[in-house]
Amino acid sequence: ISTGLKENKFGIDIEDALDLYIKANQAECIDIVGVDCHIGSQITQVEPFLESLDKVCVLVEKLKQNNINIKHIDVGGGVGIDYENNDTIDIKKYIEKIISKIKSLEVEIILEPGRAIVGKAGVFITQVEYLKQTENKSFCIVDGAMNDLLRPSLYNAYHQILPVIKDKNGIADTWDIVGPICETGDFLAKDRSLTLKQGDYLAVMDTGAYGFTMSSNYNSRPRVAEVMVSGEEHSLIRKRETIESLYNNEIIDEK
Amino acid sequence: ISTGLKENKFGIDIEDALDLYIKANQAECIDIVGVDCHIGSQITQVEPFLESLDKVCVLVEKLKQNNINIKHIDVGGGVGIDYENNDTIDIKKYIEKIISKIKSLEVEIILEPGRAIVGKAGVFITQVEYLKQTENKSFCIVDGAMNDLLRPSLYNAYHQILPVIKDKNGIADTWDIVGPICETGDFLAKDRSLTLKQGDYLAVMDTGAYGFTMSSNYNSRPRVAEVMVSGEEHSLIRKRETIESLYNNEIIDEK
Repeated sequence: ISTGLKENKFGIDIEDALDLYIKANQAECIDIVGVDCHIGSQITQVEPFLESLDKVCVLVEKLKQNNINIKHIDVGGGVGIDYENNDTIDIKKYIEKIISKIKSLEVEIILEPGRAIVGKAGVFITQVEYLKQTENKSFCIVDGAMNDLLRPSLYNAYHQILPVIKDKNGIADTWDIVGPICETGDFLAKDRSLTLKQGDYLAVMDTGAYGFTMSSNYNSRPRVAEVMVSGEEHSLIRKRETIESLYNNEIIDEK
Repeated sequence: ISTGLKENKFGIDIEDALDLYIKANQAECIDIVGVDCHIGSQITQVEPFLESLDKVCVLVEKLKQNNINIKHIDVGGGVGIDYENNDTIDIKKYIEKIISKIKSLEVEIILEPGRAIVGKAGVFITQVEYLKQTENKSFCIVDGAMNDLLRPSLYNAYHQILPVIKDKNGIADTWDIVGPICETGDFLAKDRSLTLKQGDYLAVMDTGAYGFTMSSNYNSRPRVAEVMVSGEEHSLIRKRETIESLYNNEIIDEK
């Protein structure tokens, strides 16, 4: 999820940027408006942003010296959220530090927070179908799967898992929370200490970003419904997919 | 993609199976019909199948001694295909060896080939949008992405990539074939020697299995159309998704 390395597909090397701006400035059809940068995703410290911004500020000064006056600096996205009770970026301090660096340049600042806004606003609710304890491992098989939430399988990402209703009558153990899809990579969490019983609802936390959008119909599983909750109120904002809808776009050729 | 290890969520340890069959046989509501096994996916040698089958055969003999006569052995799926010009299983020999092992038991044999049937029947066609050569890497940016074909990102899977029309007028280089999705994990192939130019169509080979079924709308990308080809004829068998269809199930709450 880093994007700013030389082996990544994105962007233009900052060493080449000045020459390209000068070239672009000579083209009548191009109106130069800003410098945009993006260094990666789920970054939990301010320093990498400030380091890249320092380089961008040097570029902007050089552009000025070449009579190229830009209107904005886009500092990109990438502000991480706290998935695992770890420290992450203090948004207020992040903004203050960015402003203090850019202020003297008198340009607009554009930010692209995505995960930082919506990540913690979503939870994925799933139900315990079956508890399977073996000599080697204890599995909590739930009805949610990697097709619903790909992040654990794809990035080995950590999502906190909490019982919706705390209940001491379940079985206390260290569980792998796994889905019903026919591959070993289908898991939501590993080695979690929880007290569980069949039928329990679990909340997979912090799934507001890269949740539904990455979901698929793998194993012919219809995608989930989405519910907006505000205080005591809730309303359905996306209907659950039907099995039939999976085949809606299919065409049977009668030939 | 192994499924038969002790740390995997699937199945019952064969050491426990006899006792469980005996227990199940005492239940009036259960009609014992067979033994099913599955050891994993994309297996390219016959030996693991035969080893597991040996254990199943021993179990079936023990079941007989306990007056439990099953009707079938399901040897599962997992027969690998040749993605990378590697040796894989000779289907004829695989079948012969399985039959020779099971024959004397006088049970039905059930096989669950999936990938082995459809994997090589599909190609994913994508177009070169832009060639980007840097000091460190050369990128071929195509209009297909990880949302269309997840296997390279998820499993670091290899798919052969061939130009649809061979053309010597392109740029010969070692390319990373990458998609337009905003993450570094969005690639279809790495370090491929190809002669390419903007606008070329590329065929990502062997995408008939775990292709469309694992595709998502990540980055608000509609899913692909599917076309059946038979000899000189072709017909559309799945319509391309529209942008509008991505929001069809959304409900705006007027409250």
